[in-house]
Amino acid sequence: IMEKKQIVNFGAGPAKIPPSVNCLARYQRSTFTFSHKKKERIQLVHWSVIFDKLILNTTENLLREILDVPENYKVIFLQGGGCGQFSAVPLNLIGLKEDRCADYIVTGSWSAKAAKEAEKYGKVNIVHPKLESYTKVPDPGSWNLNPSASYVYYCCNETVHGVEFRSVPETKGVPLVCDMSSNFLSQPVDVSKFGLIFAGAQKNVGCAGVTVVIVRDDLLGKALKECPVILDYQVQAGNNSVYNTPPCFSIYIMGLVLEWIKNNGSTTAMEKLSKEKSEMIYDIIDQSNGFYFCPVEVASRSRMNVTFRVGIKDGDEALEKKFVDEASRLGMISLKGHRSVGGIRASLYNAITVDETKMLANFMKEFMKTHH
Amino acid sequence: IMEKKQIVNFGAGPAKIPPSVNCLARYQRSTFTFSHKKKERIQLVHWSVIFDKLILNTTENLLREILDVPENYKVIFLQGGGCGQFSAVPLNLIGLKEDRCADYIVTGSWSAKAAKEAEKYGKVNIVHPKLESYTKVPDPGSWNLNPSASYVYYCCNETVHGVEFRSVPETKGVPLVCDMSSNFLSQPVDVSKFGLIFAGAQKNVGCAGVTVVIVRDDLLGKALKECPVILDYQVQAGNNSVYNTPPCFSIYIMGLVLEWIKNNGSTTAMEKLSKEKSEMIYDIIDQSNGFYFCPVEVASRSRMNVTFRVGIKDGDEALEKKFVDEASRLGMISLKGHRSVGGIRASLYNAITVDETKMLANFMKEFMKTHH
Repeated sequence: IMEKKQIVNFGAGPAKIPPSVNCLARYQRSTFTFSHKKKERIQLVHWSVIFDKLILNTTENLLREILDVPENYKVIFLQGGGCGQFSAVPLNLIGLKEDRCADYIVTGSWSAKAAKEAEKYGKVNIVHPKLESYTKVPDPGSWNLNPSASYVYYCCNETVHGVEFRSVPETKGVPLVCDMSSNFLSQPVDVSKFGLIFAGAQKNVGCAGVTVVIVRDDLLGKALKECPVILDYQVQAGNNSVYNTPPCFSIYIMGLVLEWIKNNGSTTAMEKLSKEKSEMIYDIIDQSNGFYFCPVEVASRSRMNVTFRVGIKDGDEALEKKFVDEASRLGMISLKGHRSVGGIRASLYNAITVDETKMLANFMKEFMKTHH
Repeated sequence: IMEKKQIVNFGAGPAKIPPSVNCLARYQRSTFTFSHKKKERIQLVHWSVIFDKLILNTTENLLREILDVPENYKVIFLQGGGCGQFSAVPLNLIGLKEDRCADYIVTGSWSAKAAKEAEKYGKVNIVHPKLESYTKVPDPGSWNLNPSASYVYYCCNETVHGVEFRSVPETKGVPLVCDMSSNFLSQPVDVSKFGLIFAGAQKNVGCAGVTVVIVRDDLLGKALKECPVILDYQVQAGNNSVYNTPPCFSIYIMGLVLEWIKNNGSTTAMEKLSKEKSEMIYDIIDQSNGFYFCPVEVASRSRMNVTFRVGIKDGDEALEKKFVDEASRLGMISLKGHRSVGGIRASLYNAITVDETKMLANFMKEFMKTHH
């Protein structure tokens, strides 16, 4: 029924880039225009006006515009990915109060990793009873927040389990830290509610190699002595993210993706589309009479990563393999669930279109007809 | 005399890439060939066979072949640049002995920064009397090495000052750590003499965003408790450098540059060329009757970064500005010395050709004729 026309990457890892960004072609063209006509490729000289003014500043300004970042927040571009921030957050912030204590809301494997890493630097309080499985955001009424914590940490979208927060946690004045890597810029965000937001670029804003940090400036300057200089927010902010050589190419690509988001209705449009796309898939799951099964509670289902099992509730692995293989033959790749949970995972980041999602939806319907 | 034909980047920062690498075009083509015909660009899915087998392993194997890396050494690709390694080295190695003591040979601003960073994690012993200025490698006879140090650290080429080691320091069994960022693969290296070698890619092996670490495996497993997981060599080596999302694009480009080095006579040829190129410029300096002046002692002059002053010994700044501006108009860019030392710096990394160096040499002769 479906012709083999295009390849769609539904992977949760380094993900699709909007085709119109057409990054490589543009990169090539722009290095030719920036200041010298025949400049060698990939030679962005970071100290020069070329990089600082035309790329780094443009990228920062675009991000500030899209998220309406208040003036008392710094925007920093770092290396090391989200995992780097699992260390950087406690190294920079756990010393904000003498107790060196931090609250963690753990709703999936990424926040669990972050909490484990933070234990290297201080006391970690998981604010809710341990979850049997990661299938929901625990009821805020059950949270045991510590008023003298240095910060409260959460991951607002867990890519492995497909669990997403619907609202911003209330922390009664304690700085809130959010790992927004996997749903960054997929909805409007009131930055002023946060002490710090970070996001690796490779999901919604570009390719791997750069992580953006947005941090309220009064939280800077309290890094622990053992904080590696490259992860020290104050040092990096004070040096406009060029304390050491920045990952020029990845920052450049991020700028192009930000431009694309801005030109396509910004976060409001991205939110509308993400609802439409994810509801399209969840509807098929919920109307499949159990042929497809999503283990995540309805109120915590992710708009970005739709996880489900095929055939039976715990997944018929042979059928799931067939699902992944057939989809791949039709051009829909990277649909296999994370190895730690199995099943299927369809990642519907900003760059995935409604039409591409329909292609998946149609395939799911056909597959069910054949195998129910 | 010289026509404005081409642009040559003599910068010390992110540097020239060999034109034949023609990286972007190839990148584009290869993402189209890897496993899927119409794969979206910049979508290297790091967990997949595409990235692991075809890019990461190829790049590691090429590097092992070029440097003849012994089997008991791990090769790791990390983010965070050389500055990241200034922390990672002590975090991973200073705990090798109970004293938590390390020896540093400080011959320029990079090794000075590394020594300062290491003080966060243990005792640092600068093995020689403090230098008035960074113009030489201090006589090894004057080094006061500590036999119970966890390691001895040095930077074999200082880009800011243009100081290069001619031989590998003798450490009497103490593991030797070398920052090889700026002369990496510009000469053959006996890896077995080192405990650890690291190099940021952006000088001789590609673009910013990835740093290669070559480490003897018996030195792993003693990281300090406070070592951020992304900088933990054992964790990264145990996960084939994909503990967290690697900087796929930068690793890919590094692979292309390694292929280019291999196909062009490898490190032996690079060494021969680097001597020819640097001697060409130093000869003009030494035969200029003081119009050009290199502050670095002859035996420690860098083959990679030729630093010199123009007009008078301490530099006639107006004349130096003229030098930089005229060269730039002729297509030779980034010749301005580092802001901390002033003067001129010509960086002659592997990708700079003999012909390009001749272009600079001719310009220097003409400039001297006009302004002597």
